[in-house]
Amino acid sequence: MAHRSLPLSQVYRLLEPGPVVLVTTARKARPNVMAMSWHTMLEFEPPLVGCVVSDRNHTFAALKATRECVIAIPTIEIAKQVVGCGNISGRSVDKFARFGLTPMAASRVAAPLVAQCYANLECRVVDTRFVARYCFFVLEVVKAWIDRARKDPRTIHHRGMGSFMVAGPTIRLPSKAR
Amino acid sequence: MAHRSLPLSQVYRLLEPGPVVLVTTARKARPNVMAMSWHTMLEFEPPLVGCVVSDRNHTFAALKATRECVIAIPTIEIAKQVVGCGNISGRSVDKFARFGLTPMAASRVAAPLVAQCYANLECRVVDTRFVARYCFFVLEVVKAWIDRARKDPRTIHHRGMGSFMVAGPTIRLPSKAR
Repeated sequence: MAHRSLPLSQVYRLLEPGPVVLVTTARKARPNVMAMSWHTMLEFEPPLVGCVVSDRNHTFAALKATRECVIAIPTIEIAKQVVGCGNISGRSVDKFARFGLTPMAASRVAAPLVAQCYANLECRVVDTRFVARYCFFVLEVVKAWIDRARKDPRTIHHRGMGSFMVAGPTIRLPSKAR
Repeated sequence: MAHRSLPLSQVYRLLEPGPVVLVTTARKARPNVMAMSWHTMLEFEPPLVGCVVSDRNHTFAALKATRECVIAIPTIEIAKQVVGCGNISGRSVDKFARFGLTPMAASRVAAPLVAQCYANLECRVVDTRFVARYCFFVLEVVKAWIDRARKDPRTIHHRGMGSFMVAGPTIRLPSKAR
């Protein structure tokens, strides 16, 4: 694990392809982690991310109370653990222990990084105006970490009903977009 | 091209993996099309999609004025045309003609479907409260079409700087999520 700092201007490159991510929180010194697929970039820099955290999830209350989280981006190697995190509530279980995930201290937030993930984004909640209507939180990424040793991270992408697309080859096309 | 109707309850399965999509609009009988990657599901059914359309894009004004669009989901076969649509503005060019894309009449909105895309989602704008701050539109999918002949659609996923991940294999994991 060689987690290096990533310039915030590059964060969108991690989230645009739509990976399943883990979201960690820490409330009353108790870390928790959930799986999430409903997220989108909202701004390049500072990176703003919009995401839906259902009010049925244990994470919802922690996110509202602490206004901090970590978005950790997993790859195929830990797909079973990721799906496991999505299948069980943190109300009664320490999911880090249950699934052998290692919490690591973050630098700017109390929520932990996930050591096994190839990228980790420390986030603060900056806008809650859409939470009541859509459970939609606006997060600002305040610090980003990446394992640069992982050249071709095979992220997983939720297709519903137990079906996941695994990232295939990368191609280059002459795009004028950032 | 065998575009069949898809139950609205299944729409999230198309958008969750994070594909680059095309967005079509029709203003003053003039169709236009742009490429987009900043989108997320907000609700299963009726399917609500949140998406960022920059106010620098020609589509922004059309979307505000008509409150309708189509989200068309392309695959690797037309990746060059998709990136081309993202590289040029519809202000001066008929992008359908330029890139050999075929507009087809939609059933519920004036914006056209894109015949070459394996799925098309007819959308109405239902919430514009986040447009001023984030250029974030909330869309309701009112009709969905899919080409069921395409068993393993290889969608493309933007990784920034001209880099695109192409959808790889699909795996199954015992997820309790929908």
